[in-house]
Amino acid sequence: MSQPGRQLALNLFIYPGGHHEAAWRYAASEPHRVLDITYYQELARRAEAAALDAIFFADGPSLPENIRYASRVRFEPVTWLTAIAAVTSRIGLIGTASTTYTDPYNLARLFASLDHISNGRAGWNIVTTSDAAAAQNFGLPEHPPHADRYEQAREFLDVVTKLWDSWEDDALVADRESGLFTDTDRIHRIDHVGRHYRVRGPLPVPRSPQGRPVYVQAGSSEDGRSFAARHAEAIFTAHQTLPSAQAFYADIKARGAALGRRPEHIRILPGLSPFIGSTQAEADRLEEEINDLIQPAVSLEQLRRILGIDFSGYDLDGPFPRHLIDPSGPHGAASRFQLVADIVERERPTLRGLIRRLAGARGHWVLAGTPVRIADAIQTWFESGAADGFNVMPPWLTGGFDVFVAEVVPILRRRGLFRTAYAGTTLRDHYGLPRPESGYAVARRRSA
Amino acid sequence: MSQPGRQLALNLFIYPGGHHEAAWRYAASEPHRVLDITYYQELARRAEAAALDAIFFADGPSLPENIRYASRVRFEPVTWLTAIAAVTSRIGLIGTASTTYTDPYNLARLFASLDHISNGRAGWNIVTTSDAAAAQNFGLPEHPPHADRYEQAREFLDVVTKLWDSWEDDALVADRESGLFTDTDRIHRIDHVGRHYRVRGPLPVPRSPQGRPVYVQAGSSEDGRSFAARHAEAIFTAHQTLPSAQAFYADIKARGAALGRRPEHIRILPGLSPFIGSTQAEADRLEEEINDLIQPAVSLEQLRRILGIDFSGYDLDGPFPRHLIDPSGPHGAASRFQLVADIVERERPTLRGLIRRLAGARGHWVLAGTPVRIADAIQTWFESGAADGFNVMPPWLTGGFDVFVAEVVPILRRRGLFRTAYAGTTLRDHYGLPRPESGYAVARRRSA
Repeated sequence: MSQPGRQLALNLFIYPGGHHEAAWRYAASEPHRVLDITYYQELARRAEAAALDAIFFADGPSLPENIRYASRVRFEPVTWLTAIAAVTSRIGLIGTASTTYTDPYNLARLFASLDHISNGRAGWNIVTTSDAAAAQNFGLPEHPPHADRYEQAREFLDVVTKLWDSWEDDALVADRESGLFTDTDRIHRIDHVGRHYRVRGPLPVPRSPQGRPVYVQAGSSEDGRSFAARHAEAIFTAHQTLPSAQAFYADIKARGAALGRRPEHIRILPGLSPFIGSTQAEADRLEEEINDLIQPAVSLEQLRRILGIDFSGYDLDGPFPRHLIDPSGPHGAASRFQLVADIVERERPTLRGLIRRLAGARGHWVLAGTPVRIADAIQTWFESGAADGFNVMPPWLTGGFDVFVAEVVPILRRRGLFRTAYAGTTLRDHYGLPRPESGYAVARRRSA
Repeated sequence: MSQPGRQLALNLFIYPGGHHEAAWRYAASEPHRVLDITYYQELARRAEAAALDAIFFADGPSLPENIRYASRVRFEPVTWLTAIAAVTSRIGLIGTASTTYTDPYNLARLFASLDHISNGRAGWNIVTTSDAAAAQNFGLPEHPPHADRYEQAREFLDVVTKLWDSWEDDALVADRESGLFTDTDRIHRIDHVGRHYRVRGPLPVPRSPQGRPVYVQAGSSEDGRSFAARHAEAIFTAHQTLPSAQAFYADIKARGAALGRRPEHIRILPGLSPFIGSTQAEADRLEEEINDLIQPAVSLEQLRRILGIDFSGYDLDGPFPRHLIDPSGPHGAASRFQLVADIVERERPTLRGLIRRLAGARGHWVLAGTPVRIADAIQTWFESGAADGFNVMPPWLTGGFDVFVAEVVPILRRRGLFRTAYAGTTLRDHYGLPRPESGYAVARRRSA
């Protein structure tokens, strides 16, 4: 099924210390460097040396609940990526920012900056923020419901898209002789008036190298899919099984096609958290070793956030109280709820078993195996309509990523699935995405 | 009057192309590099090589009115400074951000990031935004009046100060053995409830190296002075004459002392835009040469913003219509209005003469002379109660700064007025400011 020349996209998703919730307690980790920018710069440089498409940072504008026992500080992604942009030249830089808790004019400026500074490597992971605690940091009486957040996100995206288009590409003239600095006929007020926003524009800077940052999206709920099919150019998604990933992939590509989009312009990238060993037994032992560092209080808090249920009074090793799971409750609309409910149905774990299952990467696909087994799995998903690439989520950092680059990437290259060097310079180049023309330039040309 | 060892503070205030409004048309300028981050990184590295205290960026969240003829793009300062932080190690990094048009939680995160990434070199120039056009980019029916903006700024500052204090310095534990990542007794909700903001906190990151960024302020109105005397650690101010600067200096230091502050913890830094020549005639010729590139439309627009009067129908070379200046009008409260009105009263210029007077640095002190004359002026102001240092505003860049470093700085060093190398590593070190302890740590210690 491989199309000639079709290439995997591979991102490094960076969590401080690693994606396993106990990674920071692992002997090879460096928990004191969680706020040391050089730690992240070094990781990004290694990802760039391996010609990965991008690095990726998550975010939420509030203190994580489990900070007492979990290495979950949240630095601000755009500034962090900007400092990384300054010491790299090719790798894409994808940062998460919320449509619910930022202002569109300010967000548009930040990502335009990142795209200018990086010479066209910015990506924006568009989220509506799932953590209800954020509302209290922004004066809202309560966190808006899921559907309302998506409704607002659609308008937010409309506003920032117009702001990023507000300077046509050739608006900067800078002609000393005539004294004309810009061609103001090519700089446009957006005059947006909507339900949530009134924004005049334009931005105070010329259009950035990619025109707009790459639009990334990570929600897999019904609202999330509908939003992604229309707007996303790359989608991060969580799947535990091949059939689940295939169904999601087919659904999104079909929705996109129905909207007139080309399927290859929507890159679907499931998360993959690989424990890698020279033998299967070694990989399993490594996973066990890190699982043994789990602190149940952290895991139970995570489970409470996903399922809306407090399990702290339950026996970790008794039968799992399945009857408590309520898909019609307030958490039921979220894709992560469904994913965990599916694991419970399919595998019937104990509470401790479920905790260990989720500790690796918060519901993402965790796979322990040899480099060949990891590469085989990647190839299978890639060639059977489940993935256009992966968001690589090393269980611990930096070593968990280093071994992926040293052992798995070369296999993928030998199989012709992954580039040996960058062909272009922008994130759009790496993902094979077109550079959008300014909507105002298109309108002006059509009316001419 | 020189106190032994008292040292000048010198910042480089960077405007794209330079501070003279026609600088971008000058043959030695590089107008096509206004969005090239390496241009700014190179400038910052040269300022750091000269051991300057800081670089400084202005900002406003709207398109400048005169963008057709003036090189006045506005990149976002915090991202720009972050990219510069990555390639420097000592120089302070001061960015402007608005209390009227940002959210305190998001702003606190951005500056905490800049302080972390730069290892303690962040400064925040606190502005309320004077350009009324900004309101329309943020859905406000109108730009709030001057006094209201300051009232909101005081609450904003209270909120972000508590957020920056919300982690005590030793809250990050990261003890692998016990599994304790943070000491949550040392991480505090701020639970702010005020007229403009309701913010729970805490921030999602540990306290930054300086505790808080250096608080910088630039308004010289009555509201601005009152705010600055209470909160500012460095003040940027515009004065055309020594007596004006002396009066301002004495007033601020007296207000600060009345509030229990130590005078040396408020660094007063007037702007100075030097045209430097080997002889006075050469310096004057350089000023004339750049003044000849002025486009009157740009200057008249600037004058309209400052005085609230449209002079475009008036004879540039006729007598200045002084009767139009109305200190009781809506612009009269701003310090820049008063400064321009004073020039008109004192010098009785023509409209063209006033334009040339202001084109150099928007009302800041412009001085043409030999290196010795510039150094003499700096020393005089420094030693006669008018300044603790200067915000150096080169009329054109980069050459106008290079000659200041090459010709004026060595004279100041020979006179013992300016450091030859950095003694410390943070902006607080350079300015001689204390590192504030977290207010929550102080309260906890007192109650213990």
